[in-house]
Amino acid sequence: MVILFQSKADDPEKWRQAFAAALPEADLRIGADSVSDVREVDYAVAWKPPKGLLKQYPNLKAILSLGAGVDHLASDPDLPTDVPVVRLIDPGLTWGMTEYVLWAVLGHHRRTREYRQLQAEHRWERLEVPLGPSRRVGVMGLGELGADAARALAAMRFEVAGWSNRRKEIDGIESFAGQDELGKFLARTEVLVNLLPLTEQTTGLLNRHTLGALPKGACLVNVARGGHLVEADLLELLGTGQIAEATLDVFAEEPLPASHPFWDHPRITITPHEAAVTPPETAAATIAENIRKMERGAAPSPIVDFSKGY
Amino acid sequence: MVILFQSKADDPEKWRQAFAAALPEADLRIGADSVSDVREVDYAVAWKPPKGLLKQYPNLKAILSLGAGVDHLASDPDLPTDVPVVRLIDPGLTWGMTEYVLWAVLGHHRRTREYRQLQAEHRWERLEVPLGPSRRVGVMGLGELGADAARALAAMRFEVAGWSNRRKEIDGIESFAGQDELGKFLARTEVLVNLLPLTEQTTGLLNRHTLGALPKGACLVNVARGGHLVEADLLELLGTGQIAEATLDVFAEEPLPASHPFWDHPRITITPHEAAVTPPETAAATIAENIRKMERGAAPSPIVDFSKGY
Repeated sequence: MVILFQSKADDPEKWRQAFAAALPEADLRIGADSVSDVREVDYAVAWKPPKGLLKQYPNLKAILSLGAGVDHLASDPDLPTDVPVVRLIDPGLTWGMTEYVLWAVLGHHRRTREYRQLQAEHRWERLEVPLGPSRRVGVMGLGELGADAARALAAMRFEVAGWSNRRKEIDGIESFAGQDELGKFLARTEVLVNLLPLTEQTTGLLNRHTLGALPKGACLVNVARGGHLVEADLLELLGTGQIAEATLDVFAEEPLPASHPFWDHPRITITPHEAAVTPPETAAATIAENIRKMERGAAPSPIVDFSKGY
Repeated sequence: MVILFQSKADDPEKWRQAFAAALPEADLRIGADSVSDVREVDYAVAWKPPKGLLKQYPNLKAILSLGAGVDHLASDPDLPTDVPVVRLIDPGLTWGMTEYVLWAVLGHHRRTREYRQLQAEHRWERLEVPLGPSRRVGVMGLGELGADAARALAAMRFEVAGWSNRRKEIDGIESFAGQDELGKFLARTEVLVNLLPLTEQTTGLLNRHTLGALPKGACLVNVARGGHLVEADLLELLGTGQIAEATLDVFAEEPLPASHPFWDHPRITITPHEAAVTPPETAAATIAENIRKMERGAAPSPIVDFSKGY
């Protein structure tokens, strides 16, 4: 079986080793150049493949995303429509995301940016911090990643609500659903965490209107996609104090251009799209399991529903 | 019933309100000056009372600490020995401590200090971070606070071990006990969290020898007492790279003097003894419950055993 591994973001050697362990029967080809006959490719494991590339393989049985989001595939107008596209639900990916979200929310909650400023000034001064159960955190998107983060935030005793297309039942999480309940969700949310998939409906959803509907002085954690956020609106709302602080891992343009005003903003924390890096050691096993399922005639999961966009 | 509330660190008005709600039958006196007849004081609720003060109340039934540690009482040579001294085990205190520990450990684990530096330089660069289950965190002290923090760290999927006087059984936590096993505990610990009580035995326990026994590049989180740490040794080990980073909430001298070298150290994060501030809204209820127990002839808990020091 031939697997095309197509990603410029990842270290191919680590993946080669991880697949050798997880799926020793596979013939892993790193990059399109390593395929001499397009007919031999059975599976494509891909992150941001060049547009039009994947339609070239006539015998493809499935496309397996290397990340949780599939906007990098949906944006290819020539993406094959006759094979399943499989999202990545991987424990290692989820662990990393939840770690990041907890760190970011705890940092906003505990006013650590202000404490860092006080340290720079050699000032010993305690700041008021509410008890965890009085801190209202809101998670947009309650899929695999959002639900795990929401559960971990609730375990940390925060008052957690989630917002998603359809209502979800998660212990200890108040669930808001659909456009009708977005306003109520925003009005009660002091720290907003975005973990939505990027679709037509969610593009630009974090804008002056929605962020303006948060309580004054709210904080934003964007760990989904840069396309969710209208960056100019965030800058404006940071200027008025409507948004107190933001932690951003994703951006409209990545790498974030060196001249972008976010870099030097004193109330923005930037990380380079690293909240949840797909770890070869867990993800190769997850992908191998899906390929083995297909080889024995079963369906992989989860298959992307492009009518929903995820 | 007359309760003397003695603390310079806390906002007395908040405590007055919290006690009015939790123990309305009490006559709360804020500070020794508000007591005209020393014979009328039944209970002392105290944080760092002046030495010799508490022995002046002949009818005292108990001394209730406003914090988890009681070193501030044990250091009074004239502390009454004929009444129980009660430590504070309070949910709000525990929540705050666990939040802080999680934030600090996640920050070290995820290399957020280095990412902050990269942001300052407008550099988009991913750093290697191991999966949570490969990160070995060690918690010294598995009392109320240490055990809660250890459980929360394990829930975050870290590989967590604890070290304490006697072996403890906590799900998912490897327990090391006593001097004999300290070396083994340190040798496996990449991020060390100190939550020990300050006693004769633990004073200066974090020194060049113990910190030197950690793997090179380990991180330290001290949230117990400044007296645990030999500060000059930490500076030396930061200099050699043996210790990569430290997050310190407590110091030998507090407030930390403005000229102290910790303030400007690029790899030390300082907070002003605020990891676990006793919250009036939960702690007044906890203390009230102990006072009610004593009023009906039952023992409060936990009573300090000064032979152990906590």
